[in-house]
Amino acid sequence: MIDGFRFKTQVRVRNFEVDWQGIVHNANYLLYFEIGRIEYLKQLGIQISMESIMGSAKIVVARNEIDYRSSARFDESLDVFTKISHIKNTSFTFEGKIIETNSDRLVADNIAVHVWFDSQSDSPVRVPDEFRKKILEFEGIIY
Amino acid sequence: MIDGFRFKTQVRVRNFEVDWQGIVHNANYLLYFEIGRIEYLKQLGIQISMESIMGSAKIVVARNEIDYRSSARFDESLDVFTKISHIKNTSFTFEGKIIETNSDRLVADNIAVHVWFDSQSDSPVRVPDEFRKKILEFEGIIY
Amino acid sequence: MIDGFRFKTQVRVRNFEVDWQGIVHNANYLLYFEIGRIEYLKQLGIQISMESIMGSAKIVVARNEIDYRSSARFDESLDVFTKISHIKNTSFTFEGKIIETNSDRLVADNIAVHVWFDSQSDSPVRVPDEFRKKILEFEGIIY
Amino acid sequence: MIDGFRFKTQVRVRNFEVDWQGIVHNANYLLYFEIGRIEYLKQLGIQISMESIMGSAKIVVARNEIDYRSSARFDESLDVFTKISHIKNTSFTFEGKIIETNSDRLVADNIAVHVWFDSQSDSPVRVPDEFRKKILEFEGIIY
Repeated sequence: MIDGFRFKTQVRVRNFEVDWQGIVHNANYLLYFEIGRIEYLKQLGIQISMESIMGSAKIVVARNEIDYRSSARFDESLDVFTKISHIKNTSFTFEGKIIETNSDRLVADNIAVHVWFDSQSDSPVRVPDEFRKKILEFEGIIY
Repeated sequence: MIDGFRFKTQVRVRNFEVDWQGIVHNANYLLYFEIGRIEYLKQLGIQISMESIMGSAKIVVARNEIDYRSSARFDESLDVFTKISHIKNTSFTFEGKIIETNSDRLVADNIAVHVWFDSQSDSPVRVPDEFRKKILEFEGIIY
Repeated sequence: MIDGFRFKTQVRVRNFEVDWQGIVHNANYLLYFEIGRIEYLKQLGIQISMESIMGSAKIVVARNEIDYRSSARFDESLDVFTKISHIKNTSFTFEGKIIETNSDRLVADNIAVHVWFDSQSDSPVRVPDEFRKKILEFEGIIY
Repeated sequence: MIDGFRFKTQVRVRNFEVDWQGIVHNANYLLYFEIGRIEYLKQLGIQISMESIMGSAKIVVARNEIDYRSSARFDESLDVFTKISHIKNTSFTFEGKIIETNSDRLVADNIAVHVWFDSQSDSPVRVPDEFRKKILEFEGIIY
């Protein structure tokens, strides 16, 4: 584990994720960070399924920031660190960091702001207390 | 055309770009913006090919920011506006804006910082003057 | 138009569809053929949407055959020819052919067998007469 | 292990591999089978890298057949079984079978014919003896 993160998952770079430059295509890092977020939520017991996704509320990505620090290459193992760093009224923020497993080389950083939507009204609603509680219990103090 | 942009290309949302929420998956907007950048460079006569990409210099994405303003859905036509807004010593910045063609609905904004690399030394090099000249001629004043 | 086909759509190869061999990745041709099928159905007035897809019946791909005849490369324009060649009781078959627009070079052939499913029972049901009628009107004799 | 296969790898269905029908998109099974083939070759000590791929010879997929037996869904674990079943003069055939790990449910079958190409002449060449020997040692009799 690295400072500031309590959750890690791992991916291995697949050949079709590499582009004609021989490095992971820039959009695929977003997929790696999303894998991290999904696994993070799963281990907190937060149900993710087609039904929950299409249900009465949905979570939508409002903003992504990615800093590409070094290129990942075919067959590298990547540690994807994930945390929720902020919860506001109707939004919360995931932060992610990808580090190549064997070399500790920093590969990419991500900030992903999510908004909680009511599916009926299609407007933002307050992040549910149950969700806040689970995150707080896992992360400790967040802002 | 919209204010501040001199180049536009169009994409139509394909069914497999839509995720289980029924909206374009968040990583696919990066692909739309990249299509815009490639077409932008092509119309300026800047050669893009496997050979140029793998040649003596390469352009690498260093940072992406995407603000998701509204969801795009299957079969929508999207106008992808693209410009180069800044050229620094070894880097330059593309800005993109996606607007749904028929409704003028703002879909997403993108800032993508690119760095010019020397392939041999794998270190940043000054953005070539020929590239600067072509961009300046097309965009007028940039910073 | 080429012999045996009455419908054509066009795609242009995008850079991120090209793999580290410098050619379109083998799975992406399936996407091109699917674009052809979707456009084919659209021009016949057959509604395709999240709602129709998730509605009382759904169409599922049961089998795909792809013969790769020559590699497609970045920025090539591809003609995607599409037809429905067979309609059986609960299934029907799309055939596709991809030809590079400027050179008439054959790129790939596809046969895609689809099955009509009832969403409630999740079992195959007879291909609806309305669908058969539309296809027959467009294609003429099919088997 | 199942009858007729000596190699297995595992993938877990990721949310962005699921389409608007709530099931893995038909093109993504090709990616799972390719992961199986890459891992198969790796465990036989056959080097796969950007350099080998772009080197003096290359392996190209000539034909794919996929039979979709049942739909895979988000977060399912899939066993991907892989073997080389035939080696001819300039081509060889991979066979794959995907089975859901916990239920033993058959998900899909694949036959993928590959051709060995000389990169300079861009024409098929005999499958190298060293490759044949490694496969025969691992698989036993093949045709």
